[in-house]
Amino acid sequence: MSRTVYLNGEYLPEAEAKVSIFDRGFVMADGVYEVTSVLGGKLLDFPGHLKRLARSLSELQMGNPLSDDEWLAIHRKLVELNAIDEGIIYLQVTRGNAGDRDFAFPAEDTPPTVVLFTQSKPGLAANPQAKTGLRVISVPDLRWSRRDIKTVQLLYPSLAKMEAKHRGVDDAWLVEDGFVTEGTSNNTYIVKDGKIITRQLSQDILHGITRASLLRYAAEAQMQIEERPFTIEEAQAADEAFFTSASAFVLPVVEIDGAKVGNGSAGPVATRLRELYLEESLKSAI
Amino acid sequence: MSRTVYLNGEYLPEAEAKVSIFDRGFVMADGVYEVTSVLGGKLLDFPGHLKRLARSLSELQMGNPLSDDEWLAIHRKLVELNAIDEGIIYLQVTRGNAGDRDFAFPAEDTPPTVVLFTQSKPGLAANPQAKTGLRVISVPDLRWSRRDIKTVQLLYPSLAKMEAKHRGVDDAWLVEDGFVTEGTSNNTYIVKDGKIITRQLSQDILHGITRASLLRYAAEAQMQIEERPFTIEEAQAADEAFFTSASAFVLPVVEIDGAKVGNGSAGPVATRLRELYLEESLKSAI
Repeated sequence: MSRTVYLNGEYLPEAEAKVSIFDRGFVMADGVYEVTSVLGGKLLDFPGHLKRLARSLSELQMGNPLSDDEWLAIHRKLVELNAIDEGIIYLQVTRGNAGDRDFAFPAEDTPPTVVLFTQSKPGLAANPQAKTGLRVISVPDLRWSRRDIKTVQLLYPSLAKMEAKHRGVDDAWLVEDGFVTEGTSNNTYIVKDGKIITRQLSQDILHGITRASLLRYAAEAQMQIEERPFTIEEAQAADEAFFTSASAFVLPVVEIDGAKVGNGSAGPVATRLRELYLEESLKSAI
Repeated sequence: MSRTVYLNGEYLPEAEAKVSIFDRGFVMADGVYEVTSVLGGKLLDFPGHLKRLARSLSELQMGNPLSDDEWLAIHRKLVELNAIDEGIIYLQVTRGNAGDRDFAFPAEDTPPTVVLFTQSKPGLAANPQAKTGLRVISVPDLRWSRRDIKTVQLLYPSLAKMEAKHRGVDDAWLVEDGFVTEGTSNNTYIVKDGKIITRQLSQDILHGITRASLLRYAAEAQMQIEERPFTIEEAQAADEAFFTSASAFVLPVVEIDGAKVGNGSAGPVATRLRELYLEESLKSAI
């Protein structure tokens, strides 16, 4: 069934949603995005995603084209039009159609391009991978140095995911200067002696919205958290490993570069954190 | 006047040239490009650009959608349709419209997106900056680590050019681990005691087509060339500095981070090399 998508103020059949070849997003990767999960037709962690969107735009000296209420209204309208019960809403803002290609920014009054679309994912909350866990490989982190800005420069994460697929596993963890930065599209964690260890925020990693919520819920549940970098070797020797993202919530990692983590199956901390995240984030879903 | 552009087999008015919001180039910066200069209606260094295009595509595991003859025919047709005497032709290939957004590559039979358009630039060869020179600042090189692949991930070069503009100069030179990698969209050189010094090829810099031709012409003219990295301090203390790109050919740099290079005006080596490049490349223009 054809989706209805949002493009610059209009709700359109997906096949009609097109942008100029001069769009800054197409010729210069000059755009940012967000992904919000939908469960039971409601938006998870929505204020967090809007806040990060505003920050990404601001870091690139772009204005925010819509108010929080307008963003919410579009999200809700797309959920309704596409009858999304479980799934995600993707949002992208670029510096717009400059009318030609130039490294210099277009005129200030150039309207940004605003695109939103849905992906229906029935069974998102009941993902069987939460029980089986995922297997990952490590690859060098070759991305640009401002990973805190959620830009559409996703070529390397895409290549890394394909490398993982080619090698028969599920995903890749990125390593820089000997330490794991993050996954291709998720934040990474290990558990040792009951303590949750995850890399601290910096320009080296995305400031995950799911990460922020999960760490808050974990702290409220009196769980121990240490924010610092860790190596692949330390992860392989940990009791558990897992990752978080807006669309995966919390998922266990049971093998890294061919080595089993813990006993090679989903551990109790990751399992508990997934339950905790779903429970708590549904409470604040809108 | 509206340009005629090429998009996936069709010659279209530029305002009608649009791609899907699901194009891999738009949502994932999954595309490569080339820029070929036109002088007197002829293409400069064309085989070099086609060769690099093939390499960029291959590095990203994409097929080359057209034969060399087909690429040439489209370039020539656009030159004719848009009456380009001096200017450039831009070419972009992306992994195509996947029909949805996914980090995984789309099905193998997904047609790539092929876009070409012209930019008329009368006076390109007689650029007055060849006499006045340009002023640059240095900024950290925050790009991804595979700059040898000419991808559309140009957000950082764009930001660096805007930073230069904001600080009242013409361009920025990128610095990594203490050494200049290249300019925002050009290869960089210094001249000391008659010797031309430029960074050696690696994954750290673009393998400039103009660079390759110029170094060949310079060697044939018995000029001394040393391929190695240099620092900003060394560049400031050099006799001359300059850069090359397909659309700028050779242009002198007369100030770096506020310090005059040489006597602060276009030097004899850069001036001679520009003449040499224009003379020789016009001989092989097609």
